[in-house]
Amino acid sequence: MRNKGWTIVKPSLGTYDPSCLRLDESTVRPLKQGEVLIKTNFLSLDPVSRSWLKLDHPSAFLPLKVGDTMVGVALGTVQQSSTSGLAPGDLVRGIWGWELYSIANPMLLEKIEPNPDIPVEAHLSVFSHVGRAATLGMLIVGGLKSSDTVVVSAAAGTTGAIAAQIAKANGCRVIGIAGGAAKCGYLLVELKLDAAIDYKVGDVDSELADLCPDGIDLFFDNVGGPILDTVLEHIAVGARVVICGAISQYDLEDESNAYGCKNLPLLMYRQARMQGFQVPQFVDRFAEYDAILRNMFLQGKVRSRAHLIDGLERAPGALSLLLSGGNDGKLMVKVA
Amino acid sequence: MRNKGWTIVKPSLGTYDPSCLRLDESTVRPLKQGEVLIKTNFLSLDPVSRSWLKLDHPSAFLPLKVGDTMVGVALGTVQQSSTSGLAPGDLVRGIWGWELYSIANPMLLEKIEPNPDIPVEAHLSVFSHVGRAATLGMLIVGGLKSSDTVVVSAAAGTTGAIAAQIAKANGCRVIGIAGGAAKCGYLLVELKLDAAIDYKVGDVDSELADLCPDGIDLFFDNVGGPILDTVLEHIAVGARVVICGAISQYDLEDESNAYGCKNLPLLMYRQARMQGFQVPQFVDRFAEYDAILRNMFLQGKVRSRAHLIDGLERAPGALSLLLSGGNDGKLMVKVA
Repeated sequence: MRNKGWTIVKPSLGTYDPSCLRLDESTVRPLKQGEVLIKTNFLSLDPVSRSWLKLDHPSAFLPLKVGDTMVGVALGTVQQSSTSGLAPGDLVRGIWGWELYSIANPMLLEKIEPNPDIPVEAHLSVFSHVGRAATLGMLIVGGLKSSDTVVVSAAAGTTGAIAAQIAKANGCRVIGIAGGAAKCGYLLVELKLDAAIDYKVGDVDSELADLCPDGIDLFFDNVGGPILDTVLEHIAVGARVVICGAISQYDLEDESNAYGCKNLPLLMYRQARMQGFQVPQFVDRFAEYDAILRNMFLQGKVRSRAHLIDGLERAPGALSLLLSGGNDGKLMVKVA
Repeated sequence: MRNKGWTIVKPSLGTYDPSCLRLDESTVRPLKQGEVLIKTNFLSLDPVSRSWLKLDHPSAFLPLKVGDTMVGVALGTVQQSSTSGLAPGDLVRGIWGWELYSIANPMLLEKIEPNPDIPVEAHLSVFSHVGRAATLGMLIVGGLKSSDTVVVSAAAGTTGAIAAQIAKANGCRVIGIAGGAAKCGYLLVELKLDAAIDYKVGDVDSELADLCPDGIDLFFDNVGGPILDTVLEHIAVGARVVICGAISQYDLEDESNAYGCKNLPLLMYRQARMQGFQVPQFVDRFAEYDAILRNMFLQGKVRSRAHLIDGLERAPGALSLLLSGGNDGKLMVKVA
């Protein structure tokens, strides 16, 4: 069977360069015992995809090297299986190659039960690592309480929007930070947040001072850098700062030019906690928190938008769109 | 009754300047109902004393302004009392003025039961806010486990030394960071730490890489700044970073020149937590943790040294000594 997939030809340091990937043709090899052949339906494009392309980077979940097929979170259909528990026709989500057909490790796959109330692409947005990051980050890492004043950065991004909606669904006052009038309008009109700050035109510092005179109890951060530093000036006593992402720092030419955060001593004066996490660390709690999120989704309290890019051949370019914030909803590539 | 005390004549911004304080004479006024008159025996000089002298600063526990008598943690003897529970002759620790006699608020006083096994000055070192910071910071905030590889900065300082000894008493591998051969010798010989790094001559980064190939599980930080940033590069998955102090950042001419910490995204990749605290937030747990520390002290597992400066008139100058790291043990002023 003929295949096509994206091979890593060089690490992408500095500004992301789609030419770090090359579209190669190949033939699917026969399955070995324990393997599964999947036809890729959708590929998820995520900020961490960009970090993985640095190759030797602390974000690396799988060791990737030049010559490997790029990998990511994806949704697909089992074609052949030599492992129990998965059969041809099964819908699966997991981590596998950016290719039409992929031979996957069942350890990295989850079988998805089709549900007529859940559109298939939602399995790569609300019901994926993204929705889990928002849910686990808000509820476990952040310890969300209904009395919290919550700030979310990149609040119009997929993770941020879900995180913000979870906080609203829990009765919190929620302020979103995003870039541009369209995104801020989305936060106010669609997500019904209490306020939105456009960091591209506004003064985040003075707007937070006005909006949060009693301080911020929970900051769910997706961007890092100067916005994180500015928000720290406004945290309340006992605040929790959840480090979910740091997209402002992913495209540095030189990691020594990373933004330096000056306000860490405030963690001491404000008796505050800053905590980072990775979704897989909570694997034992997926079932419990997936159910919480599914309920919020089925009640209409959490919604997500998909931004579909058609065709595997457009995947590397689409990642640029994500990094510039040009996507409008969860970015994914429709492969088949 | 004649009195002498240190009045704040200006805020001390930038490099600490002892001339921000002036020694004034006065007469002790009569007690009002609910007040206590104390004769000061010892004054504790602490890094936070310096921060309080900035006056309008987030570290401020009590609002201080120009014209007020400087305050700090102190040990003294009740002279007169118009409150129940305290009587003349009682030994008390608390927060009151840098003066010979001070009229104190009983809410800020703790009565000390004399114990023949505990030298009186230990009530301002091991058995004070300092020992509590080490104990609560290590055990509650840091969640110390016997399997942890622990790093302590300013490990020869009073808080750091107690924190390091608590970790040793719990069976941990402990590495101390300090400035100079004498302090590093103290860490190895007296405190029996597993290793000491002299940040003034060594390369902290490469020494940590050699000493902690599997990463640091708990970092108890008293200094902030570049040492904190360097240690972050070596934290293990699941690490806890306890922000107890940031002495490298207290003497800045301009707070906008604060050191910027670049490695915060590692909190995410390493699933790590950074948490600041203030001792009073744990007031409900003082009795429980004081008893733990007292047991370690009486078993000889935790020791502390006092560096006594004679005479109230030397207090402002002695604070300079503390800030330059020139003290040798818990710095305190013997007043009477």
